[in-house]
Amino acid sequence: MLIGKVIGSIVSTRKNDNLVGSKFMVVETLAEMDQNVTRLVAVDNVGAGIGEVVLVALGSAARVGCDMAEAPVDAAIVGIVDDKIGLSGVNLK
Amino acid sequence: MLIGKVIGSIVSTRKNDNLVGSKFMVVETLAEMDQNVTRLVAVDNVGAGIGEVVLVALGSAARVGCDMAEAPVDAAIVGIVDDKIGLSGVNLK
Amino acid sequence: MLIGKVIGSIVSTRKNDNLVGSKFMVVETLAEMDQNVTRLVAVDNVGAGIGEVVLVALGSAARVGCDMAEAPVDAAIVGIVDDKIGLSGVNLK
Amino acid sequence: MLIGKVIGSIVSTRKNDNLVGSKFMVVETLAEMDQNVTRLVAVDNVGAGIGEVVLVALGSAARVGCDMAEAPVDAAIVGIVDDKIGLSGVNLK
Amino acid sequence: MLIGKVIGSIVSTRKNDNLVGSKFMVVETLAEMDQNVTRLVAVDNVGAGIGEVVLVALGSAARVGCDMAEAPVDAAIVGIVDDKIGLSGVNLK
Repeated sequence: MLIGKVIGSIVSTRKNDNLVGSKFMVVETLAEMDQNVTRLVAVDNVGAGIGEVVLVALGSAARVGCDMAEAPVDAAIVGIVDDKIGLSGVNLK
Repeated sequence: MLIGKVIGSIVSTRKNDNLVGSKFMVVETLAEMDQNVTRLVAVDNVGAGIGEVVLVALGSAARVGCDMAEAPVDAAIVGIVDDKIGLSGVNLK
Repeated sequence: MLIGKVIGSIVSTRKNDNLVGSKFMVVETLAEMDQNVTRLVAVDNVGAGIGEVVLVALGSAARVGCDMAEAPVDAAIVGIVDDKIGLSGVNLK
Repeated sequence: MLIGKVIGSIVSTRKNDNLVGSKFMVVETLAEMDQNVTRLVAVDNVGAGIGEVVLVALGSAARVGCDMAEAPVDAAIVGIVDDKIGLSGVNLK
Repeated sequence: MLIGKVIGSIVSTRKNDNLVGSKFMVVETLAEMDQNVTRLVAVDNVGAGIGEVVLVALGSAARVGCDMAEAPVDAAIVGIVDDKIGLSGVNLK
């Protein structure tokens, strides 16, 4: 899974029926995890707010593990990180 | 999921039987999401037009979530983004 | 899906039983799609020839969508592109 | 699979129900495997400790292969590498 | 699928039960396929030896296509390439 920060959300009125009710958050990956910072859209599964550091599951795990096996979802926020202690002290080369 | 802009479409006359009737759109990823802009082909699931900003699901989600579980499709347009408000205000480093 | 050009083929005599009869084509991705041009091996599903521009499905779609669900295949040529009109007129930044 | 070193762990109190009891380790990929060193979060399946070199399975393999098919997990530590002999003697270009 | 050369192997005594008996080979991708040469660990399915050029299947194909659907494996060597003729004559830009 990757760790990122929620930086916004997007709205999509015209969408696949299986996505109705989903909340689409924009997550920016942390520079501590990968120097190549990127952003992705993940469906919120835990009530994450903007600014929070979250755990994101990718691929079929996002659908099957979040009770939306039939939805066209390939990324889901599955946890809120309490702190970033595990990430400190080591710098990416 | 990724966000991109529909910039064109392609036609394939000779193709896998399970793709007959599919519309293949060329989607360019937004620079706001990833500085490494790339293009991919996604099957249209929501009636997207050229120039529209769309949400694209990748992998098995594109097949299973769009009622084409038996088709060789790994990317589908599953929503049209109303605006890009969620993307503004933060620049990728 | 990605778009690429068939540039060759490879032969593998000693291989997994579920691959017997498969034709392995070497596909080079188009620079119009991604500046980082790469090559991959895809099983031919539509009778593509060398020099043709093709549509390639990746991941489980290549197996499940091409009647070879039990084969160790992660990429398949699923269409031949009629022309590249949809790709013209826009340059990757 | 990829090889990495366990460099820390993270705690997530608010998370998906199917993740309760999982241990989230931060794994840094080895420079011997890919010059582009990155970090990811993997669920521990073998009792790995910080500093150990481990084998990580990605994608559906992490769920299906580790008795957590219904959990939103896309990376799991599935082995501890005895030594790095197989990696020595060849430098990435 | 990707093409690579077997450059070594690793040993893991403490591992997931479904991996017992598997042989873990270190495969280096060919520069002819991608200028960004990387290494990965793949389970051997065809009896490949060090120095041989092999075909590697990634993702669920590695499990499902190699009779180890329940194992945490995301890469498998599924063929030995007879020669590299299909790769010659074209240089990556």
